[in-house]
Amino acid sequence: MMKFTAIANANIALVKYWGKRNKELILPQNSSISVTLDGLNAVTTVEFDDKYDKDIFILNGKEQTENELERVISTLNIVRDLANIQTKAKVSSNNNFPTAAGLASSAAGGAAIALAATKAAGLDFSKEKLSIIARRNSGSASRSVEGGFVEWLKGEKEDGSDSFGKQIAIEDHWPEFRIIATILTTKEKKIKSRVGMAKTVENCPYYKCWLASIDEDLDKVRKGILEKDFTTVGQIAEQNAIKLHALMFTTKPAIIYWLPETLKMVHLIPEWREQGLECYFTIDGGPQVKIICLEKDVEEIKKRLSDINEIKEIHVSKPGSAAKTIEEHLF
Amino acid sequence: MMKFTAIANANIALVKYWGKRNKELILPQNSSISVTLDGLNAVTTVEFDDKYDKDIFILNGKEQTENELERVISTLNIVRDLANIQTKAKVSSNNNFPTAAGLASSAAGGAAIALAATKAAGLDFSKEKLSIIARRNSGSASRSVEGGFVEWLKGEKEDGSDSFGKQIAIEDHWPEFRIIATILTTKEKKIKSRVGMAKTVENCPYYKCWLASIDEDLDKVRKGILEKDFTTVGQIAEQNAIKLHALMFTTKPAIIYWLPETLKMVHLIPEWREQGLECYFTIDGGPQVKIICLEKDVEEIKKRLSDINEIKEIHVSKPGSAAKTIEEHLF
Repeated sequence: MMKFTAIANANIALVKYWGKRNKELILPQNSSISVTLDGLNAVTTVEFDDKYDKDIFILNGKEQTENELERVISTLNIVRDLANIQTKAKVSSNNNFPTAAGLASSAAGGAAIALAATKAAGLDFSKEKLSIIARRNSGSASRSVEGGFVEWLKGEKEDGSDSFGKQIAIEDHWPEFRIIATILTTKEKKIKSRVGMAKTVENCPYYKCWLASIDEDLDKVRKGILEKDFTTVGQIAEQNAIKLHALMFTTKPAIIYWLPETLKMVHLIPEWREQGLECYFTIDGGPQVKIICLEKDVEEIKKRLSDINEIKEIHVSKPGSAAKTIEEHLF
Repeated sequence: MMKFTAIANANIALVKYWGKRNKELILPQNSSISVTLDGLNAVTTVEFDDKYDKDIFILNGKEQTENELERVISTLNIVRDLANIQTKAKVSSNNNFPTAAGLASSAAGGAAIALAATKAAGLDFSKEKLSIIARRNSGSASRSVEGGFVEWLKGEKEDGSDSFGKQIAIEDHWPEFRIIATILTTKEKKIKSRVGMAKTVENCPYYKCWLASIDEDLDKVRKGILEKDFTTVGQIAEQNAIKLHALMFTTKPAIIYWLPETLKMVHLIPEWREQGLECYFTIDGGPQVKIICLEKDVEEIKKRLSDINEIKEIHVSKPGSAAKTIEEHLF
């Protein structure tokens, strides 16, 4: 058998995914749109070999058990079924950014393992098929197989064969687009997205209205990306993020990822806009605030961020490329 | 003509009012339930006299113009029509708590002027009729005419004659019930509720879901009050407050009254509950957090609040009495 290494970038949703219609297959209740984030990546090596009598998963140098291992085994099983093999594997993965702090490390990792595992099993799949395998590892991973701007189509079919990440535009379509990820805390969040979204679907009074409002957001952001209409993309992305968090807040029990420092940024960024600095925020399932801006304003924003004590770290990303295997490991 | 002084307490909604179906008559989209707050009051004197050639309004010692004056004139006009008089009036009002900082000073003031003005005009109205007059001054004032626990019925009629505050239980029904109002800032809020709620009705994607969810909250809180079921009343009131703010957050432009210190309290109070101290929070159209608790826990909560630097001031209120005229001014 073979050993392959793949690299995949994280992504940040501009129109968010929240809630599954099928937990087993990870089929979402709504489509979502993301930008792939250059430089925030997972590098994952999969080696199928008879020398292993069980699957092993090493994440950032640490052997994993329970949930993290189970998720990897589940992906390996899908790949083994497709390749018609039984061989156990060793999977090693490294992220270059903090795990579980609201930067979708699972998205990068899920896309990287889908690519590395299929290649290592001798399979050569289309991005569409890879995205479906990645989706079953972690929903948002379906959007990290492709580069640039990606829409994860919710699909209609029960088997999930039409629910995958479809590229809206390549990374070079809008090279000035930037995401500045600010890290306010590296503490792990209490509630995993998986658990939170199940509760929302079950009991949130606003969930129906969320779903009813998403198609309009998708249409505007998709069109905004194609036309490079920054104001539309930024406005809708910011409103969509607030709408997502309002949904979490009204779930029972309340899911409040925002910290006081998150709220400080939520007030500050619209003030910067009023001052003529056009930027928007988005927030995922965690306290971190990501700023959506254009290349020309990155320096000014970085300057302002450097005055905010609560910010521990920042990462500036342009639209990133698709998941790929790394050449030197191929041979 | 005569001069009358009335005193009315503020109130805090346990199930909130947000959005009008008729702006002119101040008819709400949904019913709401409040507790009248003992000791947080407005004292208002109305004197109709031929010596005045225009209406004058003095609030906390300062002569008012524009919006505040217009609102008083509008109430005086309603009363003059009912009494069939044309006489101008001088209105003086004093609140014993900060105005426009999220403690419903307009509720206490609206109820006090309704009572003082009708009495001064020689009218002797039922609480129901007074509540309707108070409602047209400020929506939530309709709930400050009665004491104890009050439901402002949204009503069905176009003329608003069935939209008034109806007592659910008198103040002595549940004398252990307490509201601790914490004051985190005395800065005036940027967005007036009146303007904010109009925007929500116009463009908030969650407004339909808010309205669809309110009857259940009303039923549970009404029943909870009658049965003195603190857990139910507290839980639903807290969820309803979060739901209201989620509604405001998702209005365009976003109405975010929460400050970092508000969010700190929003995280802290559920933690206190986990530690066995049963209390809940509610928040109105401002940054201030009000704690809902029982008399037995007031001292412990006060102790904990004294360790929070962001809290400038607190007021503890038991259920308060109905608006009344003050005896010594009657003669």
